Amino acid sequence: MGKLTIGFQGEHGAYSEEAIYKQFGREVKTVPTVSIREVFSLTEAGSVDLGVVPVENSVEGSINETYDMLLSSNLKVVGEVVLRVVHCLIALRAAKLGGIKVVYSHPQALAQCRNFVTALGVEPIVTYDTAGSVKMIKERRLEGAAAIAGERAAQIYGLKVLKKGIEDYSTNSTRFLVVARESAEPERPKRPSARRGGVSYGSKTSLIFAVPHTPGSLYNALEVFARAKINLTKIESRPTKERPWEYYFFVDFEGRRDDPKVVEVLSELARKTAFLKVLGSYPRSKADRP
Amino acid sequence: MGKLTIGFQGEHGAYSEEAIYKQFGREVKTVPTVSIREVFSLTEAGSVDLGVVPVENSVEGSINETYDMLLSSNLKVVGEVVLRVVHCLIALRAAKLGGIKVVYSHPQALAQCRNFVTALGVEPIVTYDTAGSVKMIKERRLEGAAAIAGERAAQIYGLKVLKKGIEDYSTNSTRFLVVARESAEPERPKRPSARRGGVSYGSKTSLIFAVPHTPGSLYNALEVFARAKINLTKIESRPTKERPWEYYFFVDFEGRRDDPKVVEVLSELARKTAFLKVLGSYPRSKADRP
Repeated sequence: MGKLTIGFQGEHGAYSEEAIYKQFGREVKTVPTVSIREVFSLTEAGSVDLGVVPVENSVEGSINETYDMLLSSNLKVVGEVVLRVVHCLIALRAAKLGGIKVVYSHPQALAQCRNFVTALGVEPIVTYDTAGSVKMIKERRLEGAAAIAGERAAQIYGLKVLKKGIEDYSTNSTRFLVVARESAEPERPKRPSARRGGVSYGSKTSLIFAVPHTPGSLYNALEVFARAKINLTKIESRPTKERPWEYYFFVDFEGRRDDPKVVEVLSELARKTAFLKVLGSYPRSKADRP
Repeated sequence: MGKLTIGFQGEHGAYSEEAIYKQFGREVKTVPTVSIREVFSLTEAGSVDLGVVPVENSVEGSINETYDMLLSSNLKVVGEVVLRVVHCLIALRAAKLGGIKVVYSHPQALAQCRNFVTALGVEPIVTYDTAGSVKMIKERRLEGAAAIAGERAAQIYGLKVLKKGIEDYSTNSTRFLVVARESAEPERPKRPSARRGGVSYGSKTSLIFAVPHTPGSLYNALEVFARAKINLTKIESRPTKERPWEYYFFVDFEGRRDDPKVVEVLSELARKTAFLKVLGSYPRSKADRP
């Protein structure tokens, strides 16, 4: 058997690749792609075993492209990784902080370092990737330019870290999802939690639903979780696109889909919603625990 | 008295300016700015009477910068405008569709025309504004380049519309909010609606709340609306930024804040939430009605 192959958006050295190494160790083959959409399509086609995609950042919020792909694709969610994101300002070896005029990075990274970039008085320029910006500065030998990316990107491309930890919030973290063609094998919970009424504390489930366009319909759907005392960890709305001002709701909650209590909740939810798609259950990321 | 002055993000010809004219007619002075943040700061400083900012698009979803500014600013929401967005591909007068190699526009506009841009096989390049991209093509006489913007931008800058209606969804609409230093005067409802239990159908209210980090707390907050049979038209979550995976919820609902039933709901909501900020009540946009 060959190595596990895992697709991610960006160039080698991207935060998504860091998330892969954190979750799966170094003995995997990482496959760079230009877009989140391509991570999904490579995984669907079986060209890679798994995909790892960013889903939300603790400062800038949800990654809409990932949510839209989770809706339209048939992939399952089989894991999550939470990564503390430490941004670095990276430039050619001869560069000095005072000589930087422009800074390249992904829009999310630029936004997460907005105060730093503003204080430095440099022009932010949007690119498709953090590590890709480091690679570009190296390849084009761009003087007076810096990139915002992770420290590992500087190591990979042999560039200099001018400043480390330039993110505006010291808690800056990104949550990634692991997607696959098949659902994860159900795992026995390591310890049942009495406090949570028997639902394993160590697992999470993600799903998407749509409710009829009538008053109280979202509340009626959420009631199913509240009555079962199941904790929602995230709720996100995305437009249906076809019907203005109607939404899909993406919900993450504590518990596994094969837990009897969750089975009952899902069956009741199916009756109360116009659309329901369970994306999968997976072990909760350690870093995600409060 | 001088004309009403209204700030918007972008250059003359931007969709935000179109929304201003739709709501206030042509007898106003529109003030272009480079960012949504600047629209808020000019309005706060009294440099303009009002600001008009995009808050959500029916295809691409919420405009995060506007939500974040609504939280941090002291401005009130005093109106909404819904605009049907018809995107055009705009280029120099001598240009032909087959000769276009790159297309400039705001990321939202590029995303709303993703299928068209992909089919055309041209390179999308992100800029800060739709109309600003048209202006740039004119000023720099960029051959082989086109911009995605509204028809009015082509007229203002004297450029040619190569193709009209290139948005992927024929229902593509953007909702804008009108922000001001003072709340709007309460208006008497034109007709009380029996169906909605006496709450005027013609008004909406926007607010922000945060709930304690405990199971069922979001449900408990929404229960207040459901029991009063008040229809939520939108719920959006945004990260608190300081505390990872804790969120502010932005809710729009039908009804005015001085309606006795809404007064009671707001007072109950204040008891059930850790944070509550009422942004304002305003007449519902005609185009927004189902």
